[in-house]
Amino acid sequence: MAIITLTTDFGLKDHYVSAIKGAILSQLPTVTIVDISHKIEKYNLLDASFILKESYPNFPQGTIHLIGINTELSGSGGYVAVKQNGHYFIGTDNGIFSLLFEETPRDIREIAVESTDKLSFPARDIFAKAACRLARGEDFNSIGKQKEDLLQRIPFRATSMGDNIRGSFVYIDSYGNVTTNIDKRLFDQVGKGRPFIIELARHSIERISKEYSEVPEGEVLAMFNSSDSLEIAMRNGKAGSLLNLKINDSITIRFQ
Amino acid sequence: MAIITLTTDFGLKDHYVSAIKGAILSQLPTVTIVDISHKIEKYNLLDASFILKESYPNFPQGTIHLIGINTELSGSGGYVAVKQNGHYFIGTDNGIFSLLFEETPRDIREIAVESTDKLSFPARDIFAKAACRLARGEDFNSIGKQKEDLLQRIPFRATSMGDNIRGSFVYIDSYGNVTTNIDKRLFDQVGKGRPFIIELARHSIERISKEYSEVPEGEVLAMFNSSDSLEIAMRNGKAGSLLNLKINDSITIRFQ
Amino acid sequence: MAIITLTTDFGLKDHYVSAIKGAILSQLPTVTIVDISHKIEKYNLLDASFILKESYPNFPQGTIHLIGINTELSGSGGYVAVKQNGHYFIGTDNGIFSLLFEETPRDIREIAVESTDKLSFPARDIFAKAACRLARGEDFNSIGKQKEDLLQRIPFRATSMGDNIRGSFVYIDSYGNVTTNIDKRLFDQVGKGRPFIIELARHSIERISKEYSEVPEGEVLAMFNSSDSLEIAMRNGKAGSLLNLKINDSITIRFQ
Repeated sequence: MAIITLTTDFGLKDHYVSAIKGAILSQLPTVTIVDISHKIEKYNLLDASFILKESYPNFPQGTIHLIGINTELSGSGGYVAVKQNGHYFIGTDNGIFSLLFEETPRDIREIAVESTDKLSFPARDIFAKAACRLARGEDFNSIGKQKEDLLQRIPFRATSMGDNIRGSFVYIDSYGNVTTNIDKRLFDQVGKGRPFIIELARHSIERISKEYSEVPEGEVLAMFNSSDSLEIAMRNGKAGSLLNLKINDSITIRFQ
Repeated sequence: MAIITLTTDFGLKDHYVSAIKGAILSQLPTVTIVDISHKIEKYNLLDASFILKESYPNFPQGTIHLIGINTELSGSGGYVAVKQNGHYFIGTDNGIFSLLFEETPRDIREIAVESTDKLSFPARDIFAKAACRLARGEDFNSIGKQKEDLLQRIPFRATSMGDNIRGSFVYIDSYGNVTTNIDKRLFDQVGKGRPFIIELARHSIERISKEYSEVPEGEVLAMFNSSDSLEIAMRNGKAGSLLNLKINDSITIRFQ
Repeated sequence: MAIITLTTDFGLKDHYVSAIKGAILSQLPTVTIVDISHKIEKYNLLDASFILKESYPNFPQGTIHLIGINTELSGSGGYVAVKQNGHYFIGTDNGIFSLLFEETPRDIREIAVESTDKLSFPARDIFAKAACRLARGEDFNSIGKQKEDLLQRIPFRATSMGDNIRGSFVYIDSYGNVTTNIDKRLFDQVGKGRPFIIELARHSIERISKEYSEVPEGEVLAMFNSSDSLEIAMRNGKAGSLLNLKINDSITIRFQ
């Protein structure tokens, strides 16, 4: 039983999300459809890529992820299907794929658009159709002709220089937890177990917690989240707003 | 495998939506339930009818659409099941059906209420039961006795006079796109391919776009949406608020 | 076909909810997952318990309810699975179960945590696994060793003294309807059919309605809701805000 997930900035009130689900179920009544998020900030590819990146590895291999954000064809590299890490991704080549994957995908197919396809709602009329073809077990190669590259949008990646790591904030969740682009691998590689100071604009942290509850309520902590990214959080509080942390602000870790 | 959709003004926090789903799954564990929207503006039948009208044709023939808005019996024409355009609709006869369909439905059944049915939550206790009966393949006639007419609420329809079409705004979506009640059929019929001016309160538009991206960011455009209704939009902007367009405001198209 | 429901304060934007769904579907592709609510007020166990209590009895016996709120292990009685009223409940023993059930559950299992389990996202990594084991039909006893008691948080219960019932408001829904902790059983037992006055801070009500529509628009009414709890409502209005009723405020019924 195939799974199709949906990640969009369509919101939950309008008819757009259910229109896609209806289109999918009309073609493939037995498929399982799962919402990843429809509350992506409008037009914000970074927001979409972060949420999908955190979510998709939890799904089984072979899951098909439909991406409905900035889908308009003009200015894009076309409608594409991408196979990466054992999952399928379908969307407009608007830069989202370069934000989603650290390694550049090589299995890319341009989705063939038929002359009868409407272009005003590609997520429903074109992506759903391609998703159902893959869900039905059709070969990835049949989706369209091979495409060599994808539009690049360079995300800020954390970098190390000597004993320091410099990263930035990439996402603030609904609890006010702030995720950075610094992952455990880089932290361990540069730090080699040495003491360190994590420097925020108004605060510094000198240890990594394993659980929110290691600190008293209202206190700031740093931990690696369930995806091994460094997160700044406040127990039962809103770290983001209380510490005035914003997306793209920088964060430095100094090892001694 | 039958599909039951839900359209309500219940919101997404309270227990009401999941109570209906539990009631449905208790009767029919294999049915597929799809949310159309639960964020309909409270008590707003026009809002509900627009969203359901745009969404339901995407579902397969035979889908059962449960409508949970203004369900109270008093002042209504009763609880009804309606078969129209190959789909089933279940709700209270409060005027919603006259807003939903251009042609008056003729297949109407009054849902028989049993003396043990509670009336405080009909969407769960009465509509879910009727929906499951249809989903199980029971005959439409078995739902209740034939009903001749439905409560009428007259929606504003677009009208033409000579070389002009006069319509109004019926929905503003989460992107600020504003949909009118003018459809492509009327536009073509009156316009016959002639040049035209679309007159808004503060703006005029002289052409129909095929895609949002035909205009620069922030510019206003008119296009027929995926349901062939005329829509006023702004590329990556909020046409509704920036142009101060409101539901029920009028819009005129003058052909030359 | 097993059903797993989700009740969390994770919200609908972040990736947390879909991560749990992905984890469940990776283990058990055919299970039916139903959202009860993800808009529980953050950290508010009372809010979570009310919504789940109202919703779960609508689901079939054997349904598994995963509870994702205040899941951190520290300060809790551990991760537990509880069997009560024919349903399974999985969560952290943080007091939620004492708010959820009037009778203290006796079928409690401590969920065995494996050394490889991460503790930063137990709802995904530990609860989902336990839920899938139950959904697959594994015996409740295999989930972990018997646990004797659960953390107690004492909810305010309505009490009677002579001819009076004293209760409080426990939930305000999205329509502004205010639910009390007074149920029909207590009302009938103390009242024995006598006339009464329901005293609110600024208002009094002398009868119980059967339907919202029994009173004119904007008028206040009292009714037993679909779960037999006394509710103060206003027809097509917001009783909660207009009457300035707040969670935990008291309400008195005097029988004559």
